[in-house]
Amino acid sequence: MTVDIDTPPTIVWVDDHVEIIDQTLLPTELRVVELRTVEDVVDAIGRLAVRGAPAIGACGAYGVVVAIDQLIAAGRSVGPDELDPIAERIAGARPTAVNLRWAVDRVLGRLDPSGNAASRREEALAEAQAVCAEDRDACDAIGRHGAAEIPEARTLMTHCNAGRLATTGIGTALGVIYGKAREGHEVEVYASETRPLLQGARLTVWELTSAGIPVTLMPDSAACSLLASGRVDAVVVGADRIAANGDVANKVGTFSHAVAAVRAGVPFYVAAPTSTIDAATASGAEIQIEARADDEVQGSELRSAHPGPMSVWNPAFDVTPAELVTGIITELGVLRPDYRESISAALDD
Amino acid sequence: MTVDIDTPPTIVWVDDHVEIIDQTLLPTELRVVELRTVEDVVDAIGRLAVRGAPAIGACGAYGVVVAIDQLIAAGRSVGPDELDPIAERIAGARPTAVNLRWAVDRVLGRLDPSGNAASRREEALAEAQAVCAEDRDACDAIGRHGAAEIPEARTLMTHCNAGRLATTGIGTALGVIYGKAREGHEVEVYASETRPLLQGARLTVWELTSAGIPVTLMPDSAACSLLASGRVDAVVVGADRIAANGDVANKVGTFSHAVAAVRAGVPFYVAAPTSTIDAATASGAEIQIEARADDEVQGSELRSAHPGPMSVWNPAFDVTPAELVTGIITELGVLRPDYRESISAALDD
Repeated sequence: MTVDIDTPPTIVWVDDHVEIIDQTLLPTELRVVELRTVEDVVDAIGRLAVRGAPAIGACGAYGVVVAIDQLIAAGRSVGPDELDPIAERIAGARPTAVNLRWAVDRVLGRLDPSGNAASRREEALAEAQAVCAEDRDACDAIGRHGAAEIPEARTLMTHCNAGRLATTGIGTALGVIYGKAREGHEVEVYASETRPLLQGARLTVWELTSAGIPVTLMPDSAACSLLASGRVDAVVVGADRIAANGDVANKVGTFSHAVAAVRAGVPFYVAAPTSTIDAATASGAEIQIEARADDEVQGSELRSAHPGPMSVWNPAFDVTPAELVTGIITELGVLRPDYRESISAALDD
Repeated sequence: MTVDIDTPPTIVWVDDHVEIIDQTLLPTELRVVELRTVEDVVDAIGRLAVRGAPAIGACGAYGVVVAIDQLIAAGRSVGPDELDPIAERIAGARPTAVNLRWAVDRVLGRLDPSGNAASRREEALAEAQAVCAEDRDACDAIGRHGAAEIPEARTLMTHCNAGRLATTGIGTALGVIYGKAREGHEVEVYASETRPLLQGARLTVWELTSAGIPVTLMPDSAACSLLASGRVDAVVVGADRIAANGDVANKVGTFSHAVAAVRAGVPFYVAAPTSTIDAATASGAEIQIEARADDEVQGSELRSAHPGPMSVWNPAFDVTPAELVTGIITELGVLRPDYRESISAALDD
């Protein structure tokens, strides 16, 4: 199995601006947009035109360069008094992924306080480029480590999108899948659609399909049945922040998949660069969970998967094992375990 | 708390035809449609214009009357040779809910082999009406038993729609909620949207709102976090078929909610009339799970919740406890439990 990637980069610095794939338009349209102001950068991160913890980290890092260019163009100083409040706006564009603030702080910390505007601008750009280069290398390494960790796994399940579109490299969770494919392993993927914004349906299906990797789309709620069926060898997801105790903040639905995987005896892996680990956060209870707009759930215009040929698994029902049921409330009263006995008695009445 | 219901019946026999609320149009439009042929009945069940195990049972029962009327109008016999194949088409319109076949068989079994066409038609209609009357009574009884079972529960979670729209009465899972409300208890409901066809978002929110019961809509994948948070006192869902051992086939996603509820120590109840119990099915492994069309998941035109004011919970992320994570694949290698130690060691490198 080979991996053939010929789509534009998710995020890249070009001359004097950032270019990103506008991920809100995928898979219907592949459009590259330019970010030329801090407003553009904050807006792109906030509306999820660029998303995925490492990618928004890269965008934040480049955002500092954009901020410096704007200050220079306005004839203003690029010292901390001017730059820090603008950088704070970028770092605060989304609260949960730690990579964003980490990358912004890293670029700011690289600036020589005694340098002039031009030298500080060059330092910022070099550091942002370094953030991206390290991210690419980290993705490659994650792919290698993941491939070595689960050599026998052929069918993998993932959630949301933690791939090329979420990083500046081959991705984290999908990096493991590309890593296995690069080493010649046959892989196939179940992707959960990831309501409400359907990053799995819109982005992961598009990305894996464009790389030639077979993918089957399913509703998030079908994952529990899938895992219980034994058809999945391992679950691999990304992370937005990992606390010091290993608790993992990731796209809503990840927790559910983890509970289902562990119950089914399917290994559940998180793939993330160490920049996603926040040693200052003791446990998940301290992680701020971003509350997003109601109309993402309620809205009438939902973006969906690509209309082209694809594999879909759409079971209408699932089966809940009796051992999970506290009671069955019928017109005859509440049946309780052992259900074989209580059901038999109820039907005999 | 009172329950005020002034919407049309979900399904009712009127003179010479069946009238149903077309549930594919809710909540945008409340339209009552007439079913005058077997084709109409099979189509309405198949496309989910009428859905919910007890309601499609009622529709199947009335469908036999429609079939007899059609045979009489065509000058044909209404004996088993003519009627049974048509009844089989109705009973097979959807495979998972046992109530459909149960109700069709019950009406057929009531027909006097020695009667004439007119008397058989009257017997069929009387039996179909009896099926509906018993369903209404069963819903009321389920409401009473459920209210008595969980008197202290104030915040309940449900999935899909097992309410007035799924039965000819006040519903099964929502019957428990109406039952509590009727007895003066304050109740509020978290409804999971129920992808792909959004019966929770479209139907349960509409139905509870129209009855004056506070409801909050959330993506299916947020349920695990909600349950872990301790904010829900009990989960109550309906059922499409219950096996002799208590395994419950219900809308996809139910299994996931059950696993999450049990892990969180939240009681998980199934509310269903005994007609939903299939003693001939030993366990869930024998239940045929209906596979529905790809475009329900993939389709570009998704029906969504009502655009009007409503309560929505839309967390972007959740936190997966470290105990569920097999390994964290980083660029430095795979971190393993105990994560406090492995993370600390990795970051110190």
